[in-house]
Amino acid sequence: MLITHKHLSKNFEYDGSQIEASWAFKSFKIKGSAIITWIGSMNIKPDNLKDFEDIGLEIKSDNMVHFMLEHFDEQPANLRIGYLRQRLLVMILKEELANKGIFSSREGDDIYIDSKKLTVSIATVSSSSMKIHLGINITSDGTPDDVDTIGLFELNNKIANSNSKEYFNYSNLLIFINDIVNNYINELNSIELDISKTNLL
Amino acid sequence: MLITHKHLSKNFEYDGSQIEASWAFKSFKIKGSAIITWIGSMNIKPDNLKDFEDIGLEIKSDNMVHFMLEHFDEQPANLRIGYLRQRLLVMILKEELANKGIFSSREGDDIYIDSKKLTVSIATVSSSSMKIHLGINITSDGTPDDVDTIGLFELNNKIANSNSKEYFNYSNLLIFINDIVNNYINELNSIELDISKTNLL
Amino acid sequence: MLITHKHLSKNFEYDGSQIEASWAFKSFKIKGSAIITWIGSMNIKPDNLKDFEDIGLEIKSDNMVHFMLEHFDEQPANLRIGYLRQRLLVMILKEELANKGIFSSREGDDIYIDSKKLTVSIATVSSSSMKIHLGINITSDGTPDDVDTIGLFELNNKIANSNSKEYFNYSNLLIFINDIVNNYINELNSIELDISKTNLL
Amino acid sequence: MLITHKHLSKNFEYDGSQIEASWAFKSFKIKGSAIITWIGSMNIKPDNLKDFEDIGLEIKSDNMVHFMLEHFDEQPANLRIGYLRQRLLVMILKEELANKGIFSSREGDDIYIDSKKLTVSIATVSSSSMKIHLGINITSDGTPDDVDTIGLFELNNKIANSNSKEYFNYSNLLIFINDIVNNYINELNSIELDISKTNLL
Amino acid sequence: MLITHKHLSKNFEYDGSQIEASWAFKSFKIKGSAIITWIGSMNIKPDNLKDFEDIGLEIKSDNMVHFMLEHFDEQPANLRIGYLRQRLLVMILKEELANKGIFSSREGDDIYIDSKKLTVSIATVSSSSMKIHLGINITSDGTPDDVDTIGLFELNNKIANSNSKEYFNYSNLLIFINDIVNNYINELNSIELDISKTNLL
Amino acid sequence: MLITHKHLSKNFEYDGSQIEASWAFKSFKIKGSAIITWIGSMNIKPDNLKDFEDIGLEIKSDNMVHFMLEHFDEQPANLRIGYLRQRLLVMILKEELANKGIFSSREGDDIYIDSKKLTVSIATVSSSSMKIHLGINITSDGTPDDVDTIGLFELNNKIANSNSKEYFNYSNLLIFINDIVNNYINELNSIELDISKTNLL
Repeated sequence: MLITHKHLSKNFEYDGSQIEASWAFKSFKIKGSAIITWIGSMNIKPDNLKDFEDIGLEIKSDNMVHFMLEHFDEQPANLRIGYLRQRLLVMILKEELANKGIFSSREGDDIYIDSKKLTVSIATVSSSSMKIHLGINITSDGTPDDVDTIGLFELNNKIANSNSKEYFNYSNLLIFINDIVNNYINELNSIELDISKTNLL
Repeated sequence: MLITHKHLSKNFEYDGSQIEASWAFKSFKIKGSAIITWIGSMNIKPDNLKDFEDIGLEIKSDNMVHFMLEHFDEQPANLRIGYLRQRLLVMILKEELANKGIFSSREGDDIYIDSKKLTVSIATVSSSSMKIHLGINITSDGTPDDVDTIGLFELNNKIANSNSKEYFNYSNLLIFINDIVNNYINELNSIELDISKTNLL
Repeated sequence: MLITHKHLSKNFEYDGSQIEASWAFKSFKIKGSAIITWIGSMNIKPDNLKDFEDIGLEIKSDNMVHFMLEHFDEQPANLRIGYLRQRLLVMILKEELANKGIFSSREGDDIYIDSKKLTVSIATVSSSSMKIHLGINITSDGTPDDVDTIGLFELNNKIANSNSKEYFNYSNLLIFINDIVNNYINELNSIELDISKTNLL
Repeated sequence: MLITHKHLSKNFEYDGSQIEASWAFKSFKIKGSAIITWIGSMNIKPDNLKDFEDIGLEIKSDNMVHFMLEHFDEQPANLRIGYLRQRLLVMILKEELANKGIFSSREGDDIYIDSKKLTVSIATVSSSSMKIHLGINITSDGTPDDVDTIGLFELNNKIANSNSKEYFNYSNLLIFINDIVNNYINELNSIELDISKTNLL
Repeated sequence: MLITHKHLSKNFEYDGSQIEASWAFKSFKIKGSAIITWIGSMNIKPDNLKDFEDIGLEIKSDNMVHFMLEHFDEQPANLRIGYLRQRLLVMILKEELANKGIFSSREGDDIYIDSKKLTVSIATVSSSSMKIHLGINITSDGTPDDVDTIGLFELNNKIANSNSKEYFNYSNLLIFINDIVNNYINELNSIELDISKTNLL
Repeated sequence: MLITHKHLSKNFEYDGSQIEASWAFKSFKIKGSAIITWIGSMNIKPDNLKDFEDIGLEIKSDNMVHFMLEHFDEQPANLRIGYLRQRLLVMILKEELANKGIFSSREGDDIYIDSKKLTVSIATVSSSSMKIHLGINITSDGTPDDVDTIGLFELNNKIANSNSKEYFNYSNLLIFINDIVNNYINELNSIELDISKTNLL
């Protein structure tokens, strides 16, 4: 499975429009399945909401890591597979946090630390592609007043390794992002390879 | 999604034949998707091996918890979805261990603790059903000599909570089994419900 | 297969907007596959027509039983399965009429009695759900002038059982509705269970 | 949808082997989807049983009309669609009986008259085709002792039309067979045509 | 596989709107899969562009043969199959040219002769149908200035057979069109028939 | 789409067993989709025949180029896509011959030159993989008496380019094989990339 990962160094807001189909091609001429990551605020416009349960709610944060995935390998696109892959992505984030000694809990596609919400996520489909957005708060600044939130930089006191290199900061955030993206791509590839060595019933 | 869970109190060996299609119906008259769990040894007969990579290897253990899943909801059966669900099941096991304070690492569908293998797992399909087997060592007794293994009962020294109620033993193993099964079923149902409230592209 | 049935006691018009995806969730917070039934008039707005053959026609009736089904179990949604299930639903209505001694004839998804049209029906899909609407005239009032129609209350003279309890009226209409919905859900479940006890080729 | 119907005038036993994939091609050089009908006894060999629930039971009758359907239009084959089409076929049989004034009841894929079983039916799949068998007793001779059965020729007293031309006999059985086959093929084609005039969500 | 071919004798422009779903039904009451062919200019309106790579480009020609295909046989529609069939159609055009002694080269879905572009093509899908457009220049008149193009009438000097009956002209263009359409339909049917005589693994 | 191509320098017979699922993994530890090519004789054992139409026929040749493809990207495997890709492969062979000035004709999956058969081909599937075999005669030696055949080395007199480097011989056969394999892989990838830049209906 070929998936292109591109991290954009430019900081910009996720307003929900980036979830539209073929956004990576239309914006960056990237063909095929792609994961675009960047750092920026979030403020989803009502018209761009993909979770009918969120209608009327504010979905916002001043500072997030954004993962915008688009998969074209499954034709036609399959929202069940989209959500299975989303769960995988969220669980890989949880594993990466655990690797740093940070214990988190998960409810569906939401990650909590000390009952504070770290992430937002949604999956959706067009007829030909599956899209997944995962946003991780870098700080809790600018998140809705009625939700208790937390950000990566606010987890540094929980990091097991006393080596300050492990602390989250803007210089090493890209390493964290790359680890998640690479683990996710490797996981999908390991599934493809497992398929090819399986004896059927 | 309706899934029947049945725990068999009788102890018997997993020889690989239980992975055949409709085993739950043929053995226990259970119709529909089902998760059968039990405790017993494992010694997979060469003819029942489903991983071509394991040909010629011994796949055995004296003492395991077995999870035998069969899903009929996807027609025709889809091995990619089968492996995605297998990964979900394995990650839910990992989450349950973490909830007890036990840190584990994962490579694909294998769980390791201190580089010792805790589990075996495979997924496969017929045209109409997806089957997943997960076996968790209770002890490392009777596992192959050339693989470093560990069992649940050998993890008690790692359990964070000093309350001995949390220690793994035969009296509370069923609670652990039920937690994994319930979390897995709830996870699949949460995906189905997420699908129904998603705005499409 | 989990399907929620909700009968709405409030009377309102079917204008075709209720066929949009996730209507049950957006209107009643019902997650998952659902069958919503109610009694009301019908007057489909041109923009909401789903049958291109009906463009320019009036699709209306003063008094109908409405069945609005949404299925999320099949991902991606499949219009062929949607129409197969619609045929099943219509044939189950025909069976229920026959159980009362009322002989009807069927052309595709239309039910006729004495060459008079009793029903309207359509199926359609989004990428993630299948929708089926079935409307049964309670009386022939307010139906288009150029179509010969009939309603349930106009069938009472054909009911075999002389026991007047069997006659259609507003007090027992819900029993008739529930019978159709329950038979339909049971039929789909019987198919799922048949799948799980079938030996493959 | 192109489906070839061939009625075989030769009488032979249905032993269950005819359900194997590509039987119509291998036996009669018929390519593509096909419906083969014939008259003959039934005695299914244990190895050919496709319903795990029937294991150990006798499935036999001296005199039946057999419908052996194979559909290749759906790739890969889909057992859910197979059973939906089977239900359609069985309901079309029920409609044809009703057209003659014979009231029957249905449980899943079984037709009963006065609580006596008229039919046997099963669906199954290979990776590339869906197979459906429907057998209708012509008489109840040679059916299992422990099942109350009935045959078409034993229904003549129930035929509404006093015109003896309507009575079931060997001279007009082919008309009945052709009506069922034609209605079934027309139904599937009407679904395909409905698909092409449906406005999507 | 039933596919209706209709050649429209009326000359009209392809502006891209004809690619919308169910166009053949909405315009000509043709139900089911259909191939509509006609002769006319092309000038695709920006809103009708289906290739995101063409945004901002002129897609136009004064004189073309147009093939507008819609397939409903695959539910849900599958863009991968849509493009596979498009490649088949384009390769069949190439074969027809070769039969006349005209050597062409192909890059994906584009045909070139002496490095001059002869064709434009796109495939797309809704949830229920696959659409393919193929346009073949009759002359290079009115094509974009920045693309080197050629038309069928400009190939006459390359036709091997000196018999002038083989030369492209308006009197025999329909024969060429029919050959391509018939070969394409026959090819799809040959695949369906091959499926039905294949022994599976 | 990741596809591994491995050319085996060892000469061995194609007896039909190589078409079994996961042959590349079981024989060469190649995971994932793979194209294995080699030179060798062919003599298909009756038990390995995949075309029911060939039962009782000899399928043999002393000297062939063999292409054995296995695709795991489509889950579950789809025989219609298998045959579409087979047609693509055969048409790419035809294009490669045309590039050398050799005119051939095609009937389904068979290539003929001067009405002599150059190739044999079949596609088949398991639940998880699509397999395609294409064999091209190098010479007509050892082919069945009742079929008029031709081999690549017997086409040298038809090669347009007088440059003898273009003539088929054992030193440059691998170039021809690689060209076909690369064009095929590139074609499949071009389809995947086209999918990702297509605006949907």
